[in-house]
Amino acid sequence: MPLKRSWVDSANTPEGPFPLNNLPYGVFTAGDDDEARCGVAIGEMILDMTAVEAEGLSPLDDDEVFAWGTWDLLIDAGPADWATLRGWLEAALAEGSDLADALAPLLVPMADATLHMPFTVTEYTDFYAGKHHATNVGTMFRGAENALPPNWLSIPIGYNGRASSVVVSGTPVRRPWGQVKGPDEALPRFAPSARFDIELEMGAIVGRGSEGPVSVAEADGMIFGYVLLNDWSARDIQAWEYQPLGPFQAKATATSISPWIVTRPALEPFRTSTPERERDLLPYLREPGPMLYDIDLAVDLIPEGGTATTIARTNYREMYYSSAQQLAHHASSGCPMRPGDLLGSGTISGPDRDSRGSLLELSWGGKEPVTLEGGATRSFLQDGDTVILRGHAQGDGYRIGFGTCEGIILPAIDKPAWA
Amino acid sequence: MPLKRSWVDSANTPEGPFPLNNLPYGVFTAGDDDEARCGVAIGEMILDMTAVEAEGLSPLDDDEVFAWGTWDLLIDAGPADWATLRGWLEAALAEGSDLADALAPLLVPMADATLHMPFTVTEYTDFYAGKHHATNVGTMFRGAENALPPNWLSIPIGYNGRASSVVVSGTPVRRPWGQVKGPDEALPRFAPSARFDIELEMGAIVGRGSEGPVSVAEADGMIFGYVLLNDWSARDIQAWEYQPLGPFQAKATATSISPWIVTRPALEPFRTSTPERERDLLPYLREPGPMLYDIDLAVDLIPEGGTATTIARTNYREMYYSSAQQLAHHASSGCPMRPGDLLGSGTISGPDRDSRGSLLELSWGGKEPVTLEGGATRSFLQDGDTVILRGHAQGDGYRIGFGTCEGIILPAIDKPAWA
Repeated sequence: MPLKRSWVDSANTPEGPFPLNNLPYGVFTAGDDDEARCGVAIGEMILDMTAVEAEGLSPLDDDEVFAWGTWDLLIDAGPADWATLRGWLEAALAEGSDLADALAPLLVPMADATLHMPFTVTEYTDFYAGKHHATNVGTMFRGAENALPPNWLSIPIGYNGRASSVVVSGTPVRRPWGQVKGPDEALPRFAPSARFDIELEMGAIVGRGSEGPVSVAEADGMIFGYVLLNDWSARDIQAWEYQPLGPFQAKATATSISPWIVTRPALEPFRTSTPERERDLLPYLREPGPMLYDIDLAVDLIPEGGTATTIARTNYREMYYSSAQQLAHHASSGCPMRPGDLLGSGTISGPDRDSRGSLLELSWGGKEPVTLEGGATRSFLQDGDTVILRGHAQGDGYRIGFGTCEGIILPAIDKPAWA
Repeated sequence: MPLKRSWVDSANTPEGPFPLNNLPYGVFTAGDDDEARCGVAIGEMILDMTAVEAEGLSPLDDDEVFAWGTWDLLIDAGPADWATLRGWLEAALAEGSDLADALAPLLVPMADATLHMPFTVTEYTDFYAGKHHATNVGTMFRGAENALPPNWLSIPIGYNGRASSVVVSGTPVRRPWGQVKGPDEALPRFAPSARFDIELEMGAIVGRGSEGPVSVAEADGMIFGYVLLNDWSARDIQAWEYQPLGPFQAKATATSISPWIVTRPALEPFRTSTPERERDLLPYLREPGPMLYDIDLAVDLIPEGGTATTIARTNYREMYYSSAQQLAHHASSGCPMRPGDLLGSGTISGPDRDSRGSLLELSWGGKEPVTLEGGATRSFLQDGDTVILRGHAQGDGYRIGFGTCEGIILPAIDKPAWA
């Protein structure tokens, strides 16, 4: 599929993130107006869907879907409305559209907009579904012989995270306090995390709920779209707390997502298969078709006052389990799934040293610090560091971009009097 | 503090769960009206707060707090309104109240009412804070030498659960499917859980949010009230899945809570201290005063068509960590806490065999089945079994009851074609 041309000129470039083929959904404010509005990215512009609806141009039967500055109502409305809206947008923004004159005044320059959380996170689940990542981390935490847990090749291992911690790209992230204990210390201390890290992930947004087990094919159809996701992780807190019941406060400070929801239809041309199984999956986890996506990913790190270094490049196709498989497993116990549930893919690491999706892996637990442009080194994040995740699917003469997923590290708060 | 007398006669009995000293909050429907209403339990009656408000008698400034059939709006309103309402209820329902004539028509017999979820669970966290339970389970899973993990005496260990799984007492619970692998099996199977279990817990409802670390004293003040909680657990799924990232589908089928929120002020006379520390806690977890409660708890099991056997009796004061300590730990990383967050205490087991809060412990992993009245035995739950949690604090001539937390086990669904 080639680039689809739009009457919005800036959308017709081969390297731009938001051509007509993409049409991702976000929430923005612009100018002096602090009312959050629904918007669709097209080139360097945002189509103000709240205004489109207010002018009676929305193709949906319900005329208050975009009035509240969130995509929650469209997500709740279900696949028929998802398809109706996308079909309308593709036609309305295409070169030669009759609606160009009516819609042109409803475009807002992206450069003038501030982006906000595009949907309400109902619940957040994070997975551990990248084999390179699991092998790397397992080797560091448990030794090479026990790197991959016995269940790993059978279960897309996941744990429930904290929905309240999910923030939109651009939100500063404050270094957490927590209980830590070094290997040579007899007792733990309460201290700011000294091993604060990133995890490069994709996030899948559940669009339809379930009340019982679902097949992988059904699960795929329940996914509304995808974002980039950074699961900020305090490794020193994690190492001391995670046995026996898993990560808790190590992952609770913040989880950042990119501001544009890239819908499943936009990614359709980039479907790719999970790798060959090393152990047969149980039937309830088998995929009827390709359910990963070929999405190039990169991580930039910018020290305070410095320049960006790309510290990792990888691809979403490196994952061992797809989001559809994860969702099918999530629902397998009868766990009710709901619109707005966010599923983190797990850290996406490739096989090479510079394709690892966390500083823990890049610096091999701090033993091999990463060298940045200008000569500074990093084992873990320092205050003032900015981390930027980038991602896009490369089409034939066009790209499906996600926008960036950014955050700057603020210093820990002063020690509270009672601590 | 003695029994406070009410003009509602049925509230003035020494063994009734709902005297004027209690005044717990629930949501009900009655008769043919399917509109959910807020209610306060008093003796064998429910004061219809939705009607009280509609008649202009509510003491709160906001006149749409109870109109929506949930206590969410009162919880959100904060401690000043919590105190105003409780003060008004204590006076309005007291013997000799001027409001008796006005309120008497707004009483609904509890026997005619159906109870519903009293609040919206924002997020659900479960802890592992009973030392007897942790020691018992640790011994079974990891051996007596490694029973208590190294961090257990320092951290109130918790993991995020699934809010969507929380249901009100009376909701049937369907036996889950899941991945299981017996010790002698080479590979896992997808099968209905054969080791489906209960966990006797208390649930603390967070009433005020936080954006950064809070002290234990502040955390105590953030708690709105308490319920009984049954954390249904599939032990066979849990055993295979829980390493390395903790329980996930084993705990996702359902979590039942009792229908009445017993407020913190009602429990004030029953405060009791956590046990002496075996290892000093870090200052951020130290309690400035007693923060557990003396609450007698019991578990009844009724086989289909059979009679009830009380299989366990214990007390909430057996816990090693209080809900206030758990909440302070939960917020320590800066994890945003929100009104409606539900914190499960962890399984409450006492030191004796008949004081264990799960079948896993009562039957010692299935090796010593529990004998029921009539001679049947149980290692884990069978289809058709009903489990009833009961609890009350014993005052001087009165009780603060919680109502029951009940659920019947339905058989697993048929095997899906794709599984």
